[in-house]
Amino acid sequence: MTDTHDPGFAWDLAKSRERRTKRWSVYGPDVLDLTVAEMDLPIAEPILTVLRDAIERQTFGYPIPAARSGLPETTAKWLTETHGLTVDPGEIRLLPELMKGITNALREFTAPGSAVIVPTPTYRSFFGAVSLADREAVQVPLLDGHRLDYDRIDAAFAAGAGSLLLCHPANPVGRIFSPAELRQLAEIAERHGGRVISDEVHAPLRYGVDFVPYAAVSEAARRQAVTLFSASKAWNIAGLRCGFVALTNPDDVVRWDRLPGAASGGISPLGMVASAAAFEHGAPWLERALAFLDANRRRLADQFADAGMPEVYHPADATYLAWLDLRRLGLADPARLLREKAGVAVTAGPDHGTSGAGFVRLNYATQPDVLADAAARIIQVLE
Amino acid sequence: MTDTHDPGFAWDLAKSRERRTKRWSVYGPDVLDLTVAEMDLPIAEPILTVLRDAIERQTFGYPIPAARSGLPETTAKWLTETHGLTVDPGEIRLLPELMKGITNALREFTAPGSAVIVPTPTYRSFFGAVSLADREAVQVPLLDGHRLDYDRIDAAFAAGAGSLLLCHPANPVGRIFSPAELRQLAEIAERHGGRVISDEVHAPLRYGVDFVPYAAVSEAARRQAVTLFSASKAWNIAGLRCGFVALTNPDDVVRWDRLPGAASGGISPLGMVASAAAFEHGAPWLERALAFLDANRRRLADQFADAGMPEVYHPADATYLAWLDLRRLGLADPARLLREKAGVAVTAGPDHGTSGAGFVRLNYATQPDVLADAAARIIQVLE
Ligand SMILES: Cc1ncc(COP(=O)(O)O)c(C=O)c1O
Ligand SMILES: Cc1ncc(COP(=O)(O)O)c(C=O)c1O
Repeated sequence: MTDTHDPGFAWDLAKSRERRTKRWSVYGPDVLDLTVAEMDLPIAEPILTVLRDAIERQTFGYPIPAARSGLPETTAKWLTETHGLTVDPGEIRLLPELMKGITNALREFTAPGSAVIVPTPTYRSFFGAVSLADREAVQVPLLDGHRLDYDRIDAAFAAGAGSLLLCHPANPVGRIFSPAELRQLAEIAERHGGRVISDEVHAPLRYGVDFVPYAAVSEAARRQAVTLFSASKAWNIAGLRCGFVALTNPDDVVRWDRLPGAASGGISPLGMVASAAAFEHGAPWLERALAFLDANRRRLADQFADAGMPEVYHPADATYLAWLDLRRLGLADPARLLREKAGVAVTAGPDHGTSGAGFVRLNYATQPDVLADAAARIIQVLE
Repeated sequence: MTDTHDPGFAWDLAKSRERRTKRWSVYGPDVLDLTVAEMDLPIAEPILTVLRDAIERQTFGYPIPAARSGLPETTAKWLTETHGLTVDPGEIRLLPELMKGITNALREFTAPGSAVIVPTPTYRSFFGAVSLADREAVQVPLLDGHRLDYDRIDAAFAAGAGSLLLCHPANPVGRIFSPAELRQLAEIAERHGGRVISDEVHAPLRYGVDFVPYAAVSEAARRQAVTLFSASKAWNIAGLRCGFVALTNPDDVVRWDRLPGAASGGISPLGMVASAAAFEHGAPWLERALAFLDANRRRLADQFADAGMPEVYHPADATYLAWLDLRRLGLADPARLLREKAGVAVTAGPDHGTSGAGFVRLNYATQPDVLADAAARIIQVLE
């Protein structure tokens, strides 16, 4: 069924359907659903091995305390070695999901009622996390769709915003911000005493582009930062419920540890063992996955270019998400048209912020023939 | 290692330790830890079977939408048949954890700032869930430790409380409230337009005592109620992250479905398949587990009685939690003394509310020899 160059990654879509996760369960068989951020790829063997073992050991109870799990050490080592963020295991806390970490950080580390600056387009669940923290989001569109708008960010902090919610690498546009850009952001935040919450979950999914965590660009950034990361996206285990927050500001650690159990609970012990396996033994699988994804995104760009519409898609630095510019259709939300006319489900651009009008988000982490079929269907509608 | 009457439930504590969950990971080998609400029993085969299958199918992504999972149908059927609560699958919503459901319900269904009446002693995480909803808890101690104090509840509603958070059966006291008692509560709540959130997670763990859900006692109760339940306690799968809320007030369903993703996300697909297996095929295992637990609690009561202190423990209607009356020690929080002097870890009484002073909570869902050893050590301290 596939023409991937990596025979070990041969995978039949029927197997993705058998997973019975959200990925292929929302629409009927005639819709190609490229919305949900899961990959149509086999799971890494080291992860399957520890999960099989955990099932036989019946690891289904409340999670072992993080400090006894070895995970803070494993993740600190991984962050240091692969991201260059020097953190101590004592600065790592576990989460059931990154959005809970964002809600907690906003509630605990920013003034009640202070607005949250959100560069857009961004991951749509950010808006829900902000509203659960009883904060308002101030959307600041990325300039040309990929650069931070320092003037508007400065103005928003000046007007009372307490924090900025960064997606780095950016979902959906795939941008990795440079250390120089981030340092400039840190200077602005510093002037206003603002916090920067940096969601770096997509960092392992990068295509040869250097990645420097926000917290690593300056001392000021390290103090401002609340850094979120996990194995969930890169190793395709989003349902196993384990993520991490690096608290590089010592005061944050103290406050975090005073949170009620309900604010920090919900971690699955199966997600814990799977995350450890990913960080410790998942690099070879990830390298192959990235080669697979890289080939996919090149083919996707070629297909739009060959159809005479190269502006629709430019491969980006990271993620397996393509941010398709469909403004030629003159529609604020072209996703609906694509579903109805092309039988392709993609995520609506405006869900990512007002600056997403005219765009859609497409997950290209699927088998090449499915991707080619979806792109052909989209091209037909565009023509 | 065990002297259980059920040879199929023979289980070595070493196996519980191998689970590497919270249960046996907090203290060193010389402390018997009877705090965490997990059972030292083998997991039901039908649950292991579906989990093994889910691992091979790699069901690690975002959960299938509830409406496509069959779970609302399975759980509605189970609630109707085993609890006598007639609910439609359309009234069931999934949760990653019950506390998230309580926080959501308080935030969405009660007036901002309205206090929450909490009969105490109660499950200690209730207080965290109330504070995460930015509400104040008004503690109303159970009369004689087991009856609702209608006068104080009435007064608290009159003073502006918007809801009452019921634990039914009650953790830690093990009480199942009678339909007559609950009807009286419903009348009071109705007079004040109050809501009743009823956490019924312990209901399957009852010892021959009839159980009627709060929502089932009257039409008023059905409208007021938000009912929480799950397979997590009764089938020992708390770490698998799947619970349920029954919304028997049609307005609640509409409001719940408008919650942001971050408020309802976090469910694990593995918890979903395990819950379905528990509800559909878990009854025989549960019956055996209850026989095992029943024998344990009788032995525990006998042991205290034989030591001339029968007042310490009275077996209750439900749960595998013993609420030990250690007031003879004259200490507000005897748990610390027991850990230090007896090497037995139990949950501090005052964690369950101010009326828990002088008490401790002990989990008796362990192997009989461990339980006997723990009781002997406690008795020694009491003597
Ligand atoms: C930027 C970003 N953060 C976080 C997540 C996952 O969040 P959670 O762990 O809350 O499910 C995703 C999922 O696609 C994401 O794109
Ligand atoms: C009364 C009660 N509710 C709920 C839970 C579990 O809550 P959660 O699903 O949020 O882990 C427990 C666990 O012991 C409990 O005793």
